[in-house]
Amino acid sequence: MSGRFTVFYRLTGNEPEALAKARDICIEQTVEFPPAYIQDERIRDHIIGKLISLQTDGAGTWLAEISYAEECAGEELTQFLNVLFGNSSIKPGIRIERITLSKRLAEVFRGPRFGVAGIRGLLAVHERPLLCSAIKPMGMSAVALAELAAQFAAGGIDIIKDDHGLANQRFCPFRERVARVAEAVSEAARRNGGRTLYAPNITADGDETLARAHFAKRAGAGALVISPALCGFGAMWQIAMDDSIALPVLWHPAFAGAFTVHADSGISHGVLYGQLARIGGADAAIFPNFGGRFSFSRDDCAAIIDACSQDMLGLRPIFPAPGGGMTLDSIPQIARFYGRDVILLMGGGLFAAGPDLVENCRTFRRLALAQ
Amino acid sequence: MSGRFTVFYRLTGNEPEALAKARDICIEQTVEFPPAYIQDERIRDHIIGKLISLQTDGAGTWLAEISYAEECAGEELTQFLNVLFGNSSIKPGIRIERITLSKRLAEVFRGPRFGVAGIRGLLAVHERPLLCSAIKPMGMSAVALAELAAQFAAGGIDIIKDDHGLANQRFCPFRERVARVAEAVSEAARRNGGRTLYAPNITADGDETLARAHFAKRAGAGALVISPALCGFGAMWQIAMDDSIALPVLWHPAFAGAFTVHADSGISHGVLYGQLARIGGADAAIFPNFGGRFSFSRDDCAAIIDACSQDMLGLRPIFPAPGGGMTLDSIPQIARFYGRDVILLMGGGLFAAGPDLVENCRTFRRLALAQ
Repeated sequence: MSGRFTVFYRLTGNEPEALAKARDICIEQTVEFPPAYIQDERIRDHIIGKLISLQTDGAGTWLAEISYAEECAGEELTQFLNVLFGNSSIKPGIRIERITLSKRLAEVFRGPRFGVAGIRGLLAVHERPLLCSAIKPMGMSAVALAELAAQFAAGGIDIIKDDHGLANQRFCPFRERVARVAEAVSEAARRNGGRTLYAPNITADGDETLARAHFAKRAGAGALVISPALCGFGAMWQIAMDDSIALPVLWHPAFAGAFTVHADSGISHGVLYGQLARIGGADAAIFPNFGGRFSFSRDDCAAIIDACSQDMLGLRPIFPAPGGGMTLDSIPQIARFYGRDVILLMGGGLFAAGPDLVENCRTFRRLALAQ
Repeated sequence: MSGRFTVFYRLTGNEPEALAKARDICIEQTVEFPPAYIQDERIRDHIIGKLISLQTDGAGTWLAEISYAEECAGEELTQFLNVLFGNSSIKPGIRIERITLSKRLAEVFRGPRFGVAGIRGLLAVHERPLLCSAIKPMGMSAVALAELAAQFAAGGIDIIKDDHGLANQRFCPFRERVARVAEAVSEAARRNGGRTLYAPNITADGDETLARAHFAKRAGAGALVISPALCGFGAMWQIAMDDSIALPVLWHPAFAGAFTVHADSGISHGVLYGQLARIGGADAAIFPNFGGRFSFSRDDCAAIIDACSQDMLGLRPIFPAPGGGMTLDSIPQIARFYGRDVILLMGGGLFAAGPDLVENCRTFRRLALAQ
């Protein structure tokens, strides 16, 4: 008999309502069938989810711990997510709060290839927060974006990513951009003796995502940006596991907002940006920092930090990568909050700091070094 | 200069707040960059989203009409969704209410290959609602599921789908299941002189989804079940467009619930299950019927019916496929609500109606014929 993994769901309602919801989840996420008409004892006793406990949190909601047979998930990330939340995502007042993998599933999914230590090793930077910026805005040509990337590299940015809105548009085709920017970054890094990773956005339709990952690898990319809410967590996982690609993966939250936008439904910040990121093979999780133009709170961000490094049966810790509305002024405060193991992602803020972009990048780097 | 497509967002807040949100969306969904630092006039005038109008709905929310240059979406469904809602999905109080495609994008995406008329043609059923059931529960062997499918076919079910929880588990490997069930369904249909489509679930990790679609085609499947919130709308679209597959696509809402679970954020029922389904090439949209164990209202379902057939620059109308908690007793009422162009999806209800499953299917069919 196979092992079981556990999911903690936060449920709204009074105790009988929460209990009914919890029992319903056990059915809905597995057999989706009236148990009275199931003849097979093994299905009734093993495949149907098991309610382990239901406890009040004292704040008017309930925490239900439900275990599932790992064979329900097969050995596929997509089906694992389907068991976690497939149909129950459609019902109100149910939020995933925590996951406990089984030993076997941790071996199957394996998690990040690089994680914090691996990315630090690639960059040979071990003591300070890492610096990241994005080439943008959408509408610029590949040539202009390559020039911009060269300036970031000259200023000492560690990871230069595509804006998540750069796909394969006429004004900047994917292959041309990736080839030009990878070359420009590698040249600039050679010139200043540093190491810089260029992370193109490979998010695309169906198997084209994988094809772009392979192209990016050949063109000399140093990492990859993927938006799994758009192309599937399974696509991200497949690319992260591919030994012929073997590049760090930065997961971007585009289209994922509905999961966290309400406190009483969806998926908690820690599970989505930390646990699922790691299970899905991401080496860093990009998310909106508190205090910026998005609505994540300090507590939400603290939960992400925690979930990026908490023990998960050997899955590597990953970098939280807060971004969104970051400015040079805010760096000391942000670095204190996140600690050393963070990727600081600054976009527009680097331009707003003054006319000399390379100099602004150097200031960004000095501020990070001081932390 | 290329054409523009339009998105209507419902926004919470008072008028100045809604206006600020609307202007922010124009930036966030395109350049994601402070306009003051954009030198290129073409980007400022063309790439940044344009607020066309902002109107109160009289119910305390606002409807903002925003247009985007179609070249922002490239010619990719994934990037189209990213422009619609990538980062703005993370902000509270923003809901997509309607999409107006541009002529060019309608030609690029093409929409459903079959739609209502195409599926009716395959089944040679033109006058009545179509009948659908699912083989389940999870945990059954491929042999047992094939026997079950044969009974559904003998009873006159038009479309026999995999439960969305059947993936590639040890107890029922994908290839064995699809081969056995396709054969059983084709044999049973031959015996009773009817036509039946078997729709296996091909939702999987990355490019494996496409590989399963090809396998299913070779094995004799008559349609496909895909959960695009799990594997990406782009994967569904790619498969729908593939001339070497050319099978009707049923989109399943697993993992998509967070989009509709709150009225003030996410994506409206009509857009998600109707407009995006059609743009993504689905021929039928499976969704939870009102009055069942989910929380969709009659109005939500009416909006889906409408969006499945409303004019969309030539994209074919598709079938709404309500399911979830349907019983034989409820068929007359449900058929009156949905009209003739509907796929009625009954699972557990067919088992609960009596010990003879084939007879229950025949009753289901008689009830549908009477509508």
